Amino acid sequence: MGLFSKDIKSMDDLFVHTLRDIYYAEKQILQALPDMIEKANDSQLKEGFRTHLRETQGQVQRIEKVFQQHGVQAKGVNCPAIDGIIEEADDVAGEVADKAVLDAALIAAAQAEEHYEITRYGSLIAWAKQLGRPDCAALLQQNLDEEKATDKKLTAVAESAVNRRAA
Amino acid sequence: MGLFSKDIKSMDDLFVHTLRDIYYAEKQILQALPDMIEKANDSQLKEGFRTHLRETQGQVQRIEKVFQQHGVQAKGVNCPAIDGIIEEADDVAGEVADKAVLDAALIAAAQAEEHYEITRYGSLIAWAKQLGRPDCAALLQQNLDEEKATDKKLTAVAESAVNRRAA
Repeated sequence: MGLFSKDIKSMDDLFVHTLRDIYYAEKQILQALPDMIEKANDSQLKEGFRTHLRETQGQVQRIEKVFQQHGVQAKGVNCPAIDGIIEEADDVAGEVADKAVLDAALIAAAQAEEHYEITRYGSLIAWAKQLGRPDCAALLQQNLDEEKATDKKLTAVAESAVNRRAA
Repeated sequence: MGLFSKDIKSMDDLFVHTLRDIYYAEKQILQALPDMIEKANDSQLKEGFRTHLRETQGQVQRIEKVFQQHGVQAKGVNCPAIDGIIEEADDVAGEVADKAVLDAALIAAAQAEEHYEITRYGSLIAWAKQLGRPDCAALLQQNLDEEKATDKKLTAVAESAVNRRAA
């Protein structure tokens, strides 16, 4: 959650800080996805990443709407967690020579990104409700539902073809 | 997945590399938990972290057993993802003054750790099955089941008391 966490005094501060954390994370994922699309070999996986890129653009807009509803400035804060997850993904994607093994590694990397988002949205939704902001919770719930669906789709792609081909 | 990923040529290499990634991650979490236990204020949360510390010790031993079954050396590889997640947790834990808000932040941090483990165990189990290692998959499944149960327990603690007190 980076440099600004000393400003966290109340539950509202924690909510806004974590919203900025996930805003930064979604934008980093937006930047990482085109490379993942290019590197993916399986056509179903490539298409899945393309769909997720469009979804992520919508998710960023929803977060901006939550900032607006909550009356705070839309900005990101440094998030070492997503930086580390993307660093691992880049590293593996750059190094694996075998196409099917690369696809399996890309799926695992994408699912690590999804699970980071799933856990942060889970916390944010709980806090939004406690803070009496069901409007914010409802928008964040839409993002959470999409992330969970993407995670399931990635598992299905892995099980249907990619892992079998790689092994 | 760090410096060694250039060695990933086959699905088996990816499996072993990711096993070393989660081995490192579990050990980092083992080191981080005593501090989280000390910082937690809610007695139920403190006890939950203590239980998770004991579980994590068992999980590390299960991973060592998987290394043994698979005939490879038990060692960790650098994992920037878990380092980033723990860095965020430390950062927030050190900065939040309000006890109830701190507990809410600690739960969110612990759940981010859980979700990282959930996603890695999910990939590892799928790959172990594809590689014809149901024995390894079965041990990893026990770790996954424990992580999922811990994640649910943390949600319950958050919803029952901590978040309400903090808000």
